[in-house]
Amino acid sequence: PIRYGVLLFPGFQALDVFGPVDVFNSLSMLYSFPTKLTMLAKTSGSVETSHQRAGNMMYSHPDTDVSQSMMVNRTFAEQLQLQGGGEEEKEESSLAIDVLIVPGGVGTRGDMSAEIDFVRAIYPRLKAILCVCTGATILARAGVLDGRRATTNKRAFAWATSTGPNVKWVSEARWVVDGNIVTGSGISAGIDATYAFVGLNYGEKIAQELADCAEYVRWMDPDHDPFAERWGLGG
Amino acid sequence: PIRYGVLLFPGFQALDVFGPVDVFNSLSMLYSFPTKLTMLAKTSGSVETSHQRAGNMMYSHPDTDVSQSMMVNRTFAEQLQLQGGGEEEKEESSLAIDVLIVPGGVGTRGDMSAEIDFVRAIYPRLKAILCVCTGATILARAGVLDGRRATTNKRAFAWATSTGPNVKWVSEARWVVDGNIVTGSGISAGIDATYAFVGLNYGEKIAQELADCAEYVRWMDPDHDPFAERWGLGG
Repeated sequence: PIRYGVLLFPGFQALDVFGPVDVFNSLSMLYSFPTKLTMLAKTSGSVETSHQRAGNMMYSHPDTDVSQSMMVNRTFAEQLQLQGGGEEEKEESSLAIDVLIVPGGVGTRGDMSAEIDFVRAIYPRLKAILCVCTGATILARAGVLDGRRATTNKRAFAWATSTGPNVKWVSEARWVVDGNIVTGSGISAGIDATYAFVGLNYGEKIAQELADCAEYVRWMDPDHDPFAERWGLGG
Repeated sequence: PIRYGVLLFPGFQALDVFGPVDVFNSLSMLYSFPTKLTMLAKTSGSVETSHQRAGNMMYSHPDTDVSQSMMVNRTFAEQLQLQGGGEEEKEESSLAIDVLIVPGGVGTRGDMSAEIDFVRAIYPRLKAILCVCTGATILARAGVLDGRRATTNKRAFAWATSTGPNVKWVSEARWVVDGNIVTGSGISAGIDATYAFVGLNYGEKIAQELADCAEYVRWMDPDHDPFAERWGLGG
C-alpha cells in the first residue's frame, strides 16, 4: 500500500488516530517507500476531538475545555470522486487511497450516518482497512464486517457489538485480521494492530525496526488480551 | 494542575504529543476535574508534522507526502502576555498555563530559537514540565535542565545529550522525575511518563483507571529500559 486515508469525525479519540498514524509517519521518514497520507472528514476545515462538543459530557467538569483540532485535507465526497469506479480508473488516479484508517471515540455514539455511508461506498475500492477501538461500529454499521471476525474496545464491548449482529465478534483479542480488514481492540491496541499491519504488508523486519525507533515493545500475540477480563468479558 | 499547554513546532513527532495528550483527553472526560488544554506555537494557524518540510529528508522517497496539521490556539508571545509576571498576576489570569508539554521530533534538529526562548521565559511561571523524546533538547538549550537528571530518546542520545553539557543525563531510563520536570525517553515512552505524571498529581488509582480505559499496560519501573542496550548505550 502507498496511499493512506484517515477517517475523522468530531469526538474521535486522538490516540486511535495517532497511534497508527505515527507508525506511518516514521515509515515514511525512515524507509524509501512512496507514501501518502490524507485526512478525510464529512466537511472541510478542521475536526476536533472535544467529547463535550461531540455531545458527550460523561463526567466532565463544567469548566473543562480540552480539544485538539486536526486540519482536514479532503471531504468524503471529494475522495469518492477521486477514488474511481473500477480498477482501471483507480489505477489512474494518484489521489485514490489504498487503505482507510478508522478510529473510534465517543463521537461514534452520535450521528455517524455520513461516515457509515462513506465506508460502505469506498470499501469495494480499497485494498485494506485498519480500524481501532469503537471505529469497528462504523464498519459494522456499514456492513463491511458482516460474516467476519473482528474485535473492538472491551470497556464498550456490549454497545459496540450491538451495532453489528452479523459480525463474529471476538471478546478476547488485542487485534484481529480477517481478509483485508484489521481491527484493533481499545485505544492503545491500535498501535499493536498497526505494527501487525506493517508486518503483513512491509515485512516483520521493518515492523520491528520501526517499533525499536519508537521505543515501543510490541505485543506479538494477537490473542493476548488481559483487558477482556478487566472489563468483565470472561477470561 | 488544571491548565496544560502543548509546545508545537514544524516536524514534531505526532505520538510525542498525542501519547500524553490523549491521557489528558480521557482524564477530562472520565473525571470531574476542571481541565484546559491549549496548543501553542511560534506562529498562529497550524503546525504540521512533515519531516520533509521541516528540512529533514532522512531516507524518504521523493514522492512521499505524509503530514498532519494541528490547529494552534495561541502563539508563544500571546501566552507569555497572559502568563503574568508574578504569582498574584498569574492567579488572576485564567489563561495562564500550569504545565507545559514538550514533544520531540526531527524538527528539533532545525532552528528552535523561538521555542528555546519561550521555554526559558515561561518556565519560572509554570508548576511543571512534561517532556518527551528529543523535546529534552529544547529544555536543555533553554537551561532549565542544568544540574538536573533527565533522559531523552536513546537512538538520538549522542546528539540529544550534546545540547546540554550541564545536564545529568540518564542513559537507562523509561522516564526521569527531577523536581517539577518529568522527561520521557523515546517517542512511546511519553505515554509511560504521562501516566507517572498523572499518578504523582492525581493519584495512582486514577492513573491506573485511565490506563485500563485505554487498554494500556503501563511500565511501572522508570529504570526499566531495554532500548538503552538496543541503541548501544550499555546495559
